[in-house]
Amino acid sequence: MIRFHNLSELQQWTASLPSNRAVGFVPTMGALHEGHASLVARAVKENDEVLASIFVNPTQFQELVDLDRYPRTLEQDCEVLERLGATAVYLPTENDMYPRGFQTRIEPGEGAEWFEGEKRPGHFTGMLTVVLKLFQQTRARRSYFGEKDAQQLFLVRRMVEDLDLNVEVLSCATIREPDGLAMSSRNARLSETERFESASLWRALSAAKSAFDRGERRASVLEQAMHDVLKATAVEVEYASVIDDLTFRPPEPTLDEHEHEQCLRAILAVRLGAARLIDNLLLGHA
Amino acid sequence: MIRFHNLSELQQWTASLPSNRAVGFVPTMGALHEGHASLVARAVKENDEVLASIFVNPTQFQELVDLDRYPRTLEQDCEVLERLGATAVYLPTENDMYPRGFQTRIEPGEGAEWFEGEKRPGHFTGMLTVVLKLFQQTRARRSYFGEKDAQQLFLVRRMVEDLDLNVEVLSCATIREPDGLAMSSRNARLSETERFESASLWRALSAAKSAFDRGERRASVLEQAMHDVLKATAVEVEYASVIDDLTFRPPEPTLDEHEHEQCLRAILAVRLGAARLIDNLLLGHA
Repeated sequence: MIRFHNLSELQQWTASLPSNRAVGFVPTMGALHEGHASLVARAVKENDEVLASIFVNPTQFQELVDLDRYPRTLEQDCEVLERLGATAVYLPTENDMYPRGFQTRIEPGEGAEWFEGEKRPGHFTGMLTVVLKLFQQTRARRSYFGEKDAQQLFLVRRMVEDLDLNVEVLSCATIREPDGLAMSSRNARLSETERFESASLWRALSAAKSAFDRGERRASVLEQAMHDVLKATAVEVEYASVIDDLTFRPPEPTLDEHEHEQCLRAILAVRLGAARLIDNLLLGHA
Repeated sequence: MIRFHNLSELQQWTASLPSNRAVGFVPTMGALHEGHASLVARAVKENDEVLASIFVNPTQFQELVDLDRYPRTLEQDCEVLERLGATAVYLPTENDMYPRGFQTRIEPGEGAEWFEGEKRPGHFTGMLTVVLKLFQQTRARRSYFGEKDAQQLFLVRRMVEDLDLNVEVLSCATIREPDGLAMSSRNARLSETERFESASLWRALSAAKSAFDRGERRASVLEQAMHDVLKATAVEVEYASVIDDLTFRPPEPTLDEHEHEQCLRAILAVRLGAARLIDNLLLGHA
């Protein structure tokens, strides 16, 4: 597997690629786990060349302490990517991404007003800006994102559609531990007791899904089902909500027949010790 | 000359073009004058195919009345483009640009804080967003902008560099009437008396340039030279300023030898009857 240590090395490679070679691209912040592996494995199946990037993007962190303690495991990450069959890994420098004078940003719209967008001001602006830059730098034909970061996936899809970007966005299902905890680089911060408690996120989402499957459609009742599970635990709930998956906003009463059919998703974010964890589960058409 | 009446017709054409055909692109809002013609003529010289677009972009107007009375002269515009040798004109519909659910925007940075960015809130966000979309839709290799809209040109260049867009930005000198008035679609709004008065913009810029050429480097003195010309006229000055051309901000004292060399430009905006006019002139290295 090739390592591109900066933009210039990447550009030599993209310039030499025949234009009909399809590049699949998996952007990451490193600390790769089975969730990332599923994205790379799918990209390898669907493309001629697979490029992963590892860049811990400072502009999408609000707290310096969170950026500082974000895990860096470069050698292990490269082993994982090589074993899965990636062509190359791109390791941009900070100057490749944010050279002197840098100032233009991508701003999400209404889909970023709530939830992660509200709790982490500036996070999605930083994420979308770096993702658009990586799309342009890599000239990817297809890109792969995990469903665990549901609002991120929603906003990347919106950006690609809104800005007519010439890249396909594909997603892979969340990979879970046996007790249901979604794989995340931040799980490493959990103590043994917290790790045990963290299974309550999945139990809460499952409770909402069970209620939905029994016919419940009221967002407030579905949300209460999640809160009922979480209140008996040590997690501090930031939000446990039901959204319209097509707008990533709280569902609204449909006013006329021309409105889109709503599709509900349960989403939640909690703090547990030193970690902040998010997860979500598609409920179905309302 | 081909007319593409919507995005789908454009896309059939771009998809059928061999990838080594260079497309030169001239985005316009129509009401073409000799300034636009110089851009198209240059694009025809430098590219295999030349595409112009005509789209009066609502998101870059702050006042509905300005949008409403913006001149629409489609048939004349198409004659001009055909005569100059353009391959095609792209006439996107509003739905091609802003379909339902559209929400992602390009936000400029510090280069938009002053001058047009301050006087026309949201203007540059609307302009950059539509320009990026047009770049993506047309898959242009080169794009052409007039120097009259100096801050627009500055921000488009920054966007292309900051977001790693795969398009070259080229500019053409401002085309002027014999008395120095810069060609603009908005000149049509001037009465005969106002048209006479409007030559004062060029006289003011020329006064700053003369002072600069005599060795004057103080921004305040160069600006006063412009105000001295304009105060004797009927124009209402919005700004008459000197900027650092590399930041599009007021020049700052250079603090250390690593600072860039400053290059000064005189810029101004005035109201004259029903028209708002802007113009600028490069002074030189400070």
